[in-house]
Amino acid sequence: MALDPTRTVAELEELRSLTGDADGAQRVAWTETWERARDFLRGKVEGTGAVEEIDAAGNQWFTLRGVSERELLIGGHLDSVPNGGWLDGCLNVLAGVEVLRRIASEGEPPVTVRLVSWADEEGARFGRSLFGSSAAAGSMRDQDELRALKDRDGVALPGALAEHGVSLDEALAASSQLEHAAAYLELHIEQGPVLESLDLPLGVVLGTFGVERSRFTWRGQAAHAGSTPMDKRRDALAGAAKLALYIREIAAEVGGGAVCTSGGVVTKPGIVTSVVETAEQLLDQRHLDAGSLARMLQLARDGAERFAAEENIEVEWERIWSIEPILFDDTLIGFADEAILEVAGASHRLPSGPLHDAAEVARAGIPTVMLFVQSLRGLSHTKVEDTKREHLELAVQALDRLASKTLAWLA
Amino acid sequence: MALDPTRTVAELEELRSLTGDADGAQRVAWTETWERARDFLRGKVEGTGAVEEIDAAGNQWFTLRGVSERELLIGGHLDSVPNGGWLDGCLNVLAGVEVLRRIASEGEPPVTVRLVSWADEEGARFGRSLFGSSAAAGSMRDQDELRALKDRDGVALPGALAEHGVSLDEALAASSQLEHAAAYLELHIEQGPVLESLDLPLGVVLGTFGVERSRFTWRGQAAHAGSTPMDKRRDALAGAAKLALYIREIAAEVGGGAVCTSGGVVTKPGIVTSVVETAEQLLDQRHLDAGSLARMLQLARDGAERFAAEENIEVEWERIWSIEPILFDDTLIGFADEAILEVAGASHRLPSGPLHDAAEVARAGIPTVMLFVQSLRGLSHTKVEDTKREHLELAVQALDRLASKTLAWLA
Repeated sequence: MALDPTRTVAELEELRSLTGDADGAQRVAWTETWERARDFLRGKVEGTGAVEEIDAAGNQWFTLRGVSERELLIGGHLDSVPNGGWLDGCLNVLAGVEVLRRIASEGEPPVTVRLVSWADEEGARFGRSLFGSSAAAGSMRDQDELRALKDRDGVALPGALAEHGVSLDEALAASSQLEHAAAYLELHIEQGPVLESLDLPLGVVLGTFGVERSRFTWRGQAAHAGSTPMDKRRDALAGAAKLALYIREIAAEVGGGAVCTSGGVVTKPGIVTSVVETAEQLLDQRHLDAGSLARMLQLARDGAERFAAEENIEVEWERIWSIEPILFDDTLIGFADEAILEVAGASHRLPSGPLHDAAEVARAGIPTVMLFVQSLRGLSHTKVEDTKREHLELAVQALDRLASKTLAWLA
Repeated sequence: MALDPTRTVAELEELRSLTGDADGAQRVAWTETWERARDFLRGKVEGTGAVEEIDAAGNQWFTLRGVSERELLIGGHLDSVPNGGWLDGCLNVLAGVEVLRRIASEGEPPVTVRLVSWADEEGARFGRSLFGSSAAAGSMRDQDELRALKDRDGVALPGALAEHGVSLDEALAASSQLEHAAAYLELHIEQGPVLESLDLPLGVVLGTFGVERSRFTWRGQAAHAGSTPMDKRRDALAGAAKLALYIREIAAEVGGGAVCTSGGVVTKPGIVTSVVETAEQLLDQRHLDAGSLARMLQLARDGAERFAAEENIEVEWERIWSIEPILFDDTLIGFADEAILEVAGASHRLPSGPLHDAAEVARAGIPTVMLFVQSLRGLSHTKVEDTKREHLELAVQALDRLASKTLAWLA
């Protein structure tokens, strides 16, 4: 059976009808709609000879036994955010099905090939993303926090998991699934504007950005807008404004794809008649190189201290969250580049800003690579998320070529 | 009877005990506590021979008939914000009582002297300030809006007024009270840091600032903090940040006491993982000169357009509220300067940022002036509002001198 990328696009459309509505995709993990998507996947894999297994964390595996027990993994996620897009996550899974069909049609592969649909990549219902992949990777270390998570209706995570046959206490047992994993491949929409701006359909992902998330709290003095001369003010907003502009200089100075975002400022008292007393500012900084990321944070903190001194206000820094950069495998990056060149004539290497299940697998020490396909206008997590049909078909072809090259390497 | 400024301070303390609690002054207009303050005032004026009248807007007048029916008015307000200070408003009224006592003790004055305690200067309960003085000045033009105002408990303004004998429909009849007014004097705490920073007890107020209140709405594009390169962003916060800093340049360039305040910025989506799509920014600009104020607004609007172009975002301007500068009377300003020089040795002329009842009276065409006495740390509308006792006593003396000079002028 030859690879048929048009079938993948048709199946994506089918899944959209089955699990979406006028507001977009509704395949939120641990819901009936998500189970419907898993049933749909089960039906599509049927006939390939791959054997299904749901692991202790709710991940759905399809295993095509090969000559060797070493495993090539192809993975994605069926779950979406509420009112999500038709491609985010499930493109990987359905492209993987097509690759599995092609490999299965050629007889027993040299190594075992497994398709995995990770459980709850988005964390849309309970706020904790990468649930299934972090359990499999053994990096899930927050069971106590997970136990306390509740959805908007007050349903606790453990209860929701139980309804889908998963016990939170047992979830880490999923790590046995990666015992024989030798390589991991994932295809995803870019969710950013880079490939579109370069007019390229496909790119190779070098790794996922390291992230530093900070809260800067600026403290000045509330003062009457009418009775306080300009030179008597201690304006907390001035500090936040200077930092909001300075982070662009930081990104430019550090370079290498550095991004800095001031995602919001909350001012108090926040009324028209008062100088701002307190401004809470969120900062997100990302880089693929750990040293560069550390330097970006240091520049921001030094800048904040300087601005606080200039404005005669105070500033307090707090780390909200951080994660190290996770680099993908050089050999697989090379294969991915070749695969893209073969099907599209031009490739591009880029980092991933968002995290993906692939990052968890890579953290577990398994050689990993991702392909990105162009996202129109860079939009995702919305019903208007889209990718050109011809680009989707090229993406399936590139994943198939990449799988072939990786199989040959592993053999 | 000689003027006794220590009595005024003692009476202020007495009023504080009678109408305040651990959280500060509670003399909110149209409440029982406010009526208690009015009773207290009634008792203090008794014995001067001045005749009380409550006008159609709830203003409390005490008239000491003079040789001429031309009138010298001394005014203030007893009402406070909730948890307010012990001086804001009532200092004027109780200093006025002491001046009235001194004048009355010297026999029939050459012109009629009236003390007025304006109703609801603060607008704390219903959000509409200068109620009584705007009715008397004839500038109350928002009866329909006033009718719809409700307090936090859902009580409508007309009902609350009725409980204190005031009919909203009849309130403008209070304008007959100013028929014979020839001059208006008001003493107030500065509510700002200027006199304290100059180490001066007293100053003459030149007028109240004109005010331009604006809302600038910046619109960019929400974009993922990780997947959107810096040069692909349309960051609404960048526009707001530039304007928040630029308004200081505007104030410096226009000079003459100009103040500009960005009182707050509200960002959407306001999350750490997204570039800001929308930022709503409040701007308050004030100047004593109408032309300068217009120029300040134009500079801000031009700057906003420039920043929007630089950032490839959009900006929309909306006027929230504005008022013209209101200038006090040159002759009375001269008298006030002399009075302050006589009692304190040094004077200072300054504008008033906050509005006052005096502004309403001045708008009605009556020669008006205000005295400011130093506010410690510039604080007001809080229980920690305070002024040194010796400065309060100097203030009563200065008001008395000013009244004498004005009486002589009117006679």
